[in-house]
Amino acid sequence: MPSKVALICGGGAFPLVAAKAAQTRGESVFLLGLRGIAGAEIEQFPHVWLGIGQLGRAFEEISARDIKKVCFIGGLKRPEFTDLRLDWGGVKRIPEIVKFLKGGDDHALKGVIKLFESEGLQVIGVDALAPELLAAQGDMAGKLPQDLADDLAFARAFLADLSAYDCGQAAVVANRRVIAVEAVEGTDAMLARVAELREKGRWRPKGRAGLLVKAPKRGQDLRVDLPAIGPDTLRGAEKAGLCGIAVAAGGVLMLDRAALAAQAERAGLFLHGFVGEAP
Amino acid sequence: MPSKVALICGGGAFPLVAAKAAQTRGESVFLLGLRGIAGAEIEQFPHVWLGIGQLGRAFEEISARDIKKVCFIGGLKRPEFTDLRLDWGGVKRIPEIVKFLKGGDDHALKGVIKLFESEGLQVIGVDALAPELLAAQGDMAGKLPQDLADDLAFARAFLADLSAYDCGQAAVVANRRVIAVEAVEGTDAMLARVAELREKGRWRPKGRAGLLVKAPKRGQDLRVDLPAIGPDTLRGAEKAGLCGIAVAAGGVLMLDRAALAAQAERAGLFLHGFVGEAP
Repeated sequence: MPSKVALICGGGAFPLVAAKAAQTRGESVFLLGLRGIAGAEIEQFPHVWLGIGQLGRAFEEISARDIKKVCFIGGLKRPEFTDLRLDWGGVKRIPEIVKFLKGGDDHALKGVIKLFESEGLQVIGVDALAPELLAAQGDMAGKLPQDLADDLAFARAFLADLSAYDCGQAAVVANRRVIAVEAVEGTDAMLARVAELREKGRWRPKGRAGLLVKAPKRGQDLRVDLPAIGPDTLRGAEKAGLCGIAVAAGGVLMLDRAALAAQAERAGLFLHGFVGEAP
Repeated sequence: MPSKVALICGGGAFPLVAAKAAQTRGESVFLLGLRGIAGAEIEQFPHVWLGIGQLGRAFEEISARDIKKVCFIGGLKRPEFTDLRLDWGGVKRIPEIVKFLKGGDDHALKGVIKLFESEGLQVIGVDALAPELLAAQGDMAGKLPQDLADDLAFARAFLADLSAYDCGQAAVVANRRVIAVEAVEGTDAMLARVAELREKGRWRPKGRAGLLVKAPKRGQDLRVDLPAIGPDTLRGAEKAGLCGIAVAAGGVLMLDRAALAAQAERAGLFLHGFVGEAP
């Protein structure tokens, strides 16, 4: 009998790809699409559509199919409490929900995991479901230049220290100087800012310089809200005139790895997966 | 005989105001205007114009007037080495200059101070020259709300930790969540970003929320490159829908304090000067 897994699907292309990968691996998948967020293509699989506040319904649908494993996949804008339109199962859990909505994103997501675990469900990460969706180790395209290894170490330590404040999955660093830090705006907006800083002469390196570093927060639960890079990230890095991108191997989603590596090669960007604890 | 002080003048309104304040206090002032950066109004005082690389000339002009005290005042975009057009006095110091241009802004500025001190000059801060240009303690406009005191403490600790990376003189925090962090783009651009996050629904508080916190970096030499707030900062905070602004008392330039306090009152923003080490 195949193992069963429920995918709670947010936006973007990852839910479908993850469902396919899991199915290929022999899992029986059931998709819970978040209404207004997940794409219609998830209907290729057994599925239901749910509002983001329909917690009670989600638990019922999962339990009715005797599913014990759940995986969160896809993007999700942080909801405000008043957007939740909670069903009765949600209303019963208001005290927990209010508590975890106060604080950074990571705090909120840990709260969501706890809610599911308290229903007796096992929350698994993408690494267990479809490891090929995660960044590989070492040089995936080009080669991390020797003189940027120091900037990478600097950026990793910087991001790790920011983690204590539940902030900072990405930064642009050049010559041991922090050019931009990501908070709520997201990586694409941060990269666009770096391109603008160049255009306006606020940052004026000669030619290509610096790198984008992206990693989960230190202590982040890797079962939810993994950082991701995609074609837009690469285009953004190219426009910002960076030398390349370094991501945490196994900790950053890539769709898909081969296509991104090819795109990076064409753009003359290196794409590197680093391992281990931040220095 | 009045004490003499040389003002190395960058951009913005502070050089003129500081010169006037020092003169009122009985100092004899001599202004060295950075060409293309300082405003023409500095010609109201005894002055010379210098290119940013004319270090040798600067030392000669200062020494010729038997001046022993120097104060840096006004804004300065970080120059690239190749923009410097060094004179002979600058060329002789290339090894030091190259060394301090590698690294963050604060590192670079400490290098500049050292260069001047190695000429036997005393580098003084604005606090010694014109303390009325610095943020006062406590509530300067409105009142820091009780429920934002926690966000202020959080933001101060956050900025202090960023200091180790020579980054982060300002951040916007709401409900213990970092909404935006300033790096190279500057405070105005960061505030515009927060306004945009609101418009785009990426940050959706009900009504006014959060605060801008601005402070010198931990361990920053307060004799150069103090952070500043002005009318644009207040307008930016208003557009971003913040509750107010908190700045390090004695560590942030304000032009001028009374006018900014009045503007804040009109805009319904609190303006608070905090003291002591970051928590």
